[in-house]
Amino acid sequence: MSERISAPRIQGIFTPNVVPLDASGAINEPELRRYVDWLIEKGVHGLYPNGSTGEFTRFSPEERRRIVKIVCQQAAGRVPVLAGAAEANVRETLAACQCYAEYGARAVAIVSPFYFKLGPESVYAYFREIALHSPIDVTLYNIPMFASPIDVPTIRRLAEFDRIIGIKDSSGDMAFMMRMMQAVRPIRPDFAFLTGWEAVLVPMLLIGADGGTNATSGVVPELTRKLYDLTRAGQIDEAMRLQFRMLELFDAMLYSADFPEGFRAAVELRGFQAGPSRQPQTDRQRIDRAALQKVLQCILADFGYVEAPAAGCPPRTGDMSQDRVCHIAATVVDELQRRGVI
Amino acid sequence: MSERISAPRIQGIFTPNVVPLDASGAINEPELRRYVDWLIEKGVHGLYPNGSTGEFTRFSPEERRRIVKIVCQQAAGRVPVLAGAAEANVRETLAACQCYAEYGARAVAIVSPFYFKLGPESVYAYFREIALHSPIDVTLYNIPMFASPIDVPTIRRLAEFDRIIGIKDSSGDMAFMMRMMQAVRPIRPDFAFLTGWEAVLVPMLLIGADGGTNATSGVVPELTRKLYDLTRAGQIDEAMRLQFRMLELFDAMLYSADFPEGFRAAVELRGFQAGPSRQPQTDRQRIDRAALQKVLQCILADFGYVEAPAAGCPPRTGDMSQDRVCHIAATVVDELQRRGVI
Amino acid sequence: MSERISAPRIQGIFTPNVVPLDASGAINEPELRRYVDWLIEKGVHGLYPNGSTGEFTRFSPEERRRIVKIVCQQAAGRVPVLAGAAEANVRETLAACQCYAEYGARAVAIVSPFYFKLGPESVYAYFREIALHSPIDVTLYNIPMFASPIDVPTIRRLAEFDRIIGIKDSSGDMAFMMRMMQAVRPIRPDFAFLTGWEAVLVPMLLIGADGGTNATSGVVPELTRKLYDLTRAGQIDEAMRLQFRMLELFDAMLYSADFPEGFRAAVELRGFQAGPSRQPQTDRQRIDRAALQKVLQCILADFGYVEAPAAGCPPRTGDMSQDRVCHIAATVVDELQRRGVI
Amino acid sequence: MSERISAPRIQGIFTPNVVPLDASGAINEPELRRYVDWLIEKGVHGLYPNGSTGEFTRFSPEERRRIVKIVCQQAAGRVPVLAGAAEANVRETLAACQCYAEYGARAVAIVSPFYFKLGPESVYAYFREIALHSPIDVTLYNIPMFASPIDVPTIRRLAEFDRIIGIKDSSGDMAFMMRMMQAVRPIRPDFAFLTGWEAVLVPMLLIGADGGTNATSGVVPELTRKLYDLTRAGQIDEAMRLQFRMLELFDAMLYSADFPEGFRAAVELRGFQAGPSRQPQTDRQRIDRAALQKVLQCILADFGYVEAPAAGCPPRTGDMSQDRVCHIAATVVDELQRRGVI
Repeated sequence: MSERISAPRIQGIFTPNVVPLDASGAINEPELRRYVDWLIEKGVHGLYPNGSTGEFTRFSPEERRRIVKIVCQQAAGRVPVLAGAAEANVRETLAACQCYAEYGARAVAIVSPFYFKLGPESVYAYFREIALHSPIDVTLYNIPMFASPIDVPTIRRLAEFDRIIGIKDSSGDMAFMMRMMQAVRPIRPDFAFLTGWEAVLVPMLLIGADGGTNATSGVVPELTRKLYDLTRAGQIDEAMRLQFRMLELFDAMLYSADFPEGFRAAVELRGFQAGPSRQPQTDRQRIDRAALQKVLQCILADFGYVEAPAAGCPPRTGDMSQDRVCHIAATVVDELQRRGVI
Repeated sequence: MSERISAPRIQGIFTPNVVPLDASGAINEPELRRYVDWLIEKGVHGLYPNGSTGEFTRFSPEERRRIVKIVCQQAAGRVPVLAGAAEANVRETLAACQCYAEYGARAVAIVSPFYFKLGPESVYAYFREIALHSPIDVTLYNIPMFASPIDVPTIRRLAEFDRIIGIKDSSGDMAFMMRMMQAVRPIRPDFAFLTGWEAVLVPMLLIGADGGTNATSGVVPELTRKLYDLTRAGQIDEAMRLQFRMLELFDAMLYSADFPEGFRAAVELRGFQAGPSRQPQTDRQRIDRAALQKVLQCILADFGYVEAPAAGCPPRTGDMSQDRVCHIAATVVDELQRRGVI
Repeated sequence: MSERISAPRIQGIFTPNVVPLDASGAINEPELRRYVDWLIEKGVHGLYPNGSTGEFTRFSPEERRRIVKIVCQQAAGRVPVLAGAAEANVRETLAACQCYAEYGARAVAIVSPFYFKLGPESVYAYFREIALHSPIDVTLYNIPMFASPIDVPTIRRLAEFDRIIGIKDSSGDMAFMMRMMQAVRPIRPDFAFLTGWEAVLVPMLLIGADGGTNATSGVVPELTRKLYDLTRAGQIDEAMRLQFRMLELFDAMLYSADFPEGFRAAVELRGFQAGPSRQPQTDRQRIDRAALQKVLQCILADFGYVEAPAAGCPPRTGDMSQDRVCHIAATVVDELQRRGVI
Repeated sequence: MSERISAPRIQGIFTPNVVPLDASGAINEPELRRYVDWLIEKGVHGLYPNGSTGEFTRFSPEERRRIVKIVCQQAAGRVPVLAGAAEANVRETLAACQCYAEYGARAVAIVSPFYFKLGPESVYAYFREIALHSPIDVTLYNIPMFASPIDVPTIRRLAEFDRIIGIKDSSGDMAFMMRMMQAVRPIRPDFAFLTGWEAVLVPMLLIGADGGTNATSGVVPELTRKLYDLTRAGQIDEAMRLQFRMLELFDAMLYSADFPEGFRAAVELRGFQAGPSRQPQTDRQRIDRAALQKVLQCILADFGYVEAPAAGCPPRTGDMSQDRVCHIAATVVDELQRRGVI
């Protein structure tokens, strides 16, 4: 199929980084640089600016370029950069690809067309056009809860283009991951399969995934690295023990606020100023976010990553949903009383 | 609630216009101007640039401004313009609102946040921020198949802002439309309810909708105007007779190609150069589109809007899905034979 | 197509009756007979035992026969009976059809296969087998939220069987109803189209539906009859005014408890003993049901069908969801305090 | 929580057996007995009559009892029997539980309420009532594509009843399985977690599932047993190699015909007369089924379980969906030509 395969297959844990903002809502470049350094020091295998966690749709085309530039410069070759390059149309996307190639990105990641829900033939046509003209390797990004789904036959067809070197799948569907592997590997042994659903990171690695691009790695990069290393070393029991604990953290960040605000709240606990969200918040949401942050602090404290709250943490029962709801409800009531609302 | 209500309520049929492109894929300004004139002459009550039919997500921010400018200039006050103003974030959206106010738009239409699927509180926060700062009236745009849904309690809360003067709903759910009316009208008798689902345009008008923003009106503006006038005049039987016939056309345009390509193919039949889509097409899609265009020509010829194809039209049985599929299949086979593929 | 068409087309409002149970959970035959009399006196055009509202799945095959027998006997030819006849398999279903023909039912109604989600070809095969062997006319029952959907091409194919005389559709999708009519009427002008979604009963009648099988008619048979008569008489404004008010009642019954418990609670307010549900209830559900019943009493009192609660009714704002939630919450808190829980 | 825990935790692969029918559609008892013997000889750990694969909804209450009786008798204590016991309502279900206890079943499996889509409180109330009165251990059965979903908080609440000893989950959602384990194991270490989604059987076992109730084990009991044993022995690479191959078989059986007809077609290849389906079939479906059976024969021949078709097997490319479609299409065309249709 291909003689040009030279670059090593993409593997490991890539961080789809949040973008720190300053008080005025502009990109906080120093904080972003400091955050990139920290992530690399804590062991992530790569960086993934302009992912969903990076809220790429909420930045202007110029801002998206600036974010990739900052991340590439700061990474400075220490780890590869996978740059989110989806723009308004193929022409603009290809211009971004050119730009990110010049910045030194290892590859671009391009989400399936969104807003319009396109059928398989249109999804194929879109990526085919990009594959034919991109000056840089491309990974597909399948996230069916947000964008047009990429189905197995379409992935198989797209794998015939050398430029397309892998896929990130955020469906979390293990059987779907296996079907993709089975369809593609016979013709492209170099093709990379990354999961975006860290709830099942260890099982995904066990069935043959090459790694993941996981928002959680931007919060606990030590932990996702450890899970990866343990699984690769065959220490499955220990890996699964941590996977279960990480699931509690992941669920709390994902389901207690509209994505990715829970992750931004957690990044702050690790010492970085996420700044105000570009998505406006109501007072009630601000109270909920503060309550969530206390829960997250307790979970992170159990891992030893941060100090526990001075007021202490309630015991958690293993029924995460209940714990979270109760804790948040209690905090909200506290806050409302403090403000004299009730 | 409000003493500033002065502008008349938005009503009638607004056309979410397609954007003609030239061979290079750039905006074909003369053709767009000619198309605007034609739509106004054929009786549409207003224009709606940067709608979903106008593929607003596939243009750059600068192009979106240019489209609104052209449409406002060309309309020249003959009909009101409802300008799609959704941008990457609230700040950019507000800048577009400012700009469209200066261009003379009657109001802006802002789609609910998309890509991320946000909950009701976030949807509220988003539109609240816009309502507080927009220099121009705002209509909400609910299109749950593409964007975060706006539920009835949220619409009720948003109706407390004078700046928000109406909603366009593309769900096609009649009971939902009635629930909105019931929740909002007691506090805002001036609030406009527009449907984006012309499959049920007549029934929507009968239950009290003020009009619609309907892609079909960009293809057969005479027909949608006639449906509107007949319904307003109480000639329901005749209106429904045409509604049934329009449904055949609507379904053919909507379900035989990824939206809005079927509508672009139909606009060409009315004598305008839609040009190449910004969404790449495969050869198979091009053949399908040509086949669809022949079906559309037959339907439009029945109305007397265009000549029938020289080769004639097959009888249609009333089972639209079958007719369409069979005709397309036949045309594809013809085409494949012509090309020597089979 | 058919020369056997003699029986008049099914039309009007049919009541899918709830089944009163005694304290032991057995069918309360005297109460069911009394309820049938009352419905007929209040003007329903027909009865529909063993519908979803009648919880046909929660009765044994013998009980289902007994329910139809009671209803047919008690109706005694005053109104036609449409008997729900779906059983475990085609053979059992045909035996029930035979039985209901002997009881004097006008036709049977057969829900699309449920539990398993079958594709169109299987749905066709199932109804075809029934159509070929049933000794009594058959109406299809499409309720896609509960059972395998029946799509338009399948309805078109099934309309070729004389035995199949109509369809009841509970999707509430107006465009789907129009598509069915357009596909079937050219070959079967006698085919009946009934809606099971009374939220849009008036608009459905306006576009050409022949009537409905509506759970709400078991609660306010006078009202559904009035809507029907007004619409048929062309008094659309008055019909729509009542439709809006009925929507509030419908939503309260449908969305405040798992179906059909809200309808059973409302039937009790009209003076019939519904008895304990066959679906077990928790204490919390019993409290919620009592709270809901107070809301329903207020709505029914506005119509003049029942007395208002002695404690009075709070003003309703038009935002039904909020009203309902607040009222229920208040009642729950009252109840919890009364029990000393809080 | 419980001192009565004495019976060992349910684990291993249980077969939800298909029910052989004779030419008249009645239960083929001798064939069912022969099939039970074969399954036990081939190594299944248990039997599960009246599962979805056993089409429990298509049999009468009396037939369901007879099926369990036959299976229990024939198993004769060699392997445990998990008897599907869902009936029309709680009273009938409890009567079936009593009966199956007398037949010697190890436990009953009860699917969540179906047809009506119930909320969590109703699902809880239903299983609570059963748990309080069942004379035999109960396993919950969660199959959200067919029945009301059982969510994690509800499972946690139900795990407080000693009578409930496990759950079978057919969602295939690995993260959901982990959330259940995390919520329940702290209070019920004896609770069994079984997966009904053998597409991911090995990963499910790796994360801690106790086994599965898998339709595929009724076709290739040697294979599912081998996967189980390999995984338990830590031979993950070999287990996964077989898991990928089994996925091809599973997908072909599941997606090429309405469930469970593909599994019935495969059971015939192993030498058992499945007989005519209780769900009627069209000619087209019979042709498709014959075509599917040839594909299945090729897959089973690769494993060495059956002879390859005399006409040989085409190479399979690893893209299962394509292979299957092409092979079926080819067979259909052959058949149509043979019959003179084309």
